[in-house]
Amino acid sequence: MTVLSEVLEANGRYADAFGDKGELALPPARGFAILTCMDARLDPAKFAGLSEGDAHVIRNAGGRASDDAIRSLVISYKLLGTREWFVIHHTDCGMEFFTDEVMRGLLASSLETAVLGEKGFYDVGEGPGSSEAKYIDWLTISDQAASVTEDVTRIKAHPLVPARIAVYGYIYDVKTGRLTEVPDATAAGRATA
Amino acid sequence: MTVLSEVLEANGRYADAFGDKGELALPPARGFAILTCMDARLDPAKFAGLSEGDAHVIRNAGGRASDDAIRSLVISYKLLGTREWFVIHHTDCGMEFFTDEVMRGLLASSLETAVLGEKGFYDVGEGPGSSEAKYIDWLTISDQAASVTEDVTRIKAHPLVPARIAVYGYIYDVKTGRLTEVPDATAAGRATA
Repeated sequence: MTVLSEVLEANGRYADAFGDKGELALPPARGFAILTCMDARLDPAKFAGLSEGDAHVIRNAGGRASDDAIRSLVISYKLLGTREWFVIHHTDCGMEFFTDEVMRGLLASSLETAVLGEKGFYDVGEGPGSSEAKYIDWLTISDQAASVTEDVTRIKAHPLVPARIAVYGYIYDVKTGRLTEVPDATAAGRATA
Repeated sequence: MTVLSEVLEANGRYADAFGDKGELALPPARGFAILTCMDARLDPAKFAGLSEGDAHVIRNAGGRASDDAIRSLVISYKLLGTREWFVIHHTDCGMEFFTDEVMRGLLASSLETAVLGEKGFYDVGEGPGSSEAKYIDWLTISDQAASVTEDVTRIKAHPLVPARIAVYGYIYDVKTGRLTEVPDATAAGRATA
């Protein structure tokens, strides 16, 4: 069976048992948002105990406080009333295994999928590639705790983020499923009004 | 109980029953990615039948093909091998209820949460606000199907996205939990190599 038919079949089962979830309101019932990584091993609803309707979930490569994540967070509080945000990066994140220079080289070489060897990613594809990658900041990570603190600090310093919002910084361990606080991040993210 | 302690307590229960999920590999086992909205009512793992380890999930306000979503999708195929992507917007999306002009006015007025009335959002807070909002494209939506098609088309036209990737366009109905195809989007997103 193809991915598409598997997804649609799973969706049919979900919709058949949808119950009263069609009555949920647009604003998140529990008033918070989570910014985390797109990594397939992470299920924020499961690891943070969310039911449908509870909280906004924003995800990108790395769980980084990109301009787009900040756009989403501002919409989250300004229009939909969230008051607390979590920034959650994770162990064994793909974003730790390359740099802007590596990614630009790989994409200039080909648009095939690279292979991860002992010395990092290398390209096996035939070209052509694209030089477009040099115009993108890939937001790679060299230190998990530092990246969480950096992102919480960026969010709190943004002129569209009010001082009353508390931002918590955590790392999710993919080996155990457990969240561990990054104290420097949470200190940087405390509500000050 | 506070949101923070509730989340940590739920996480403790999840970690206690983590089982063998610590063995999951970094690349998505089922080789696909979903780009969808941060809306609290959407649980992509549930509505698309994902287990931990299956697929990348990228989420932002609207599920839009922002530059940051494209950064994430390129990492998804180039380094982690995904071959099919879903763009999923949804009914009753908050992004339909305002424009750039409205958002800029609201944020210039105050950084308090606005109220949604019959004529749209209005501000009840005391200033100061910030003029920073005018430098942000809020990526609002005026027509669901058109926005899905626009986003699939943007992704397929991006120089870092190879022709072999298939992109499917769907709308999730928050009243029923069901996915409905946007045929124009899926046609625009078909693999051509």
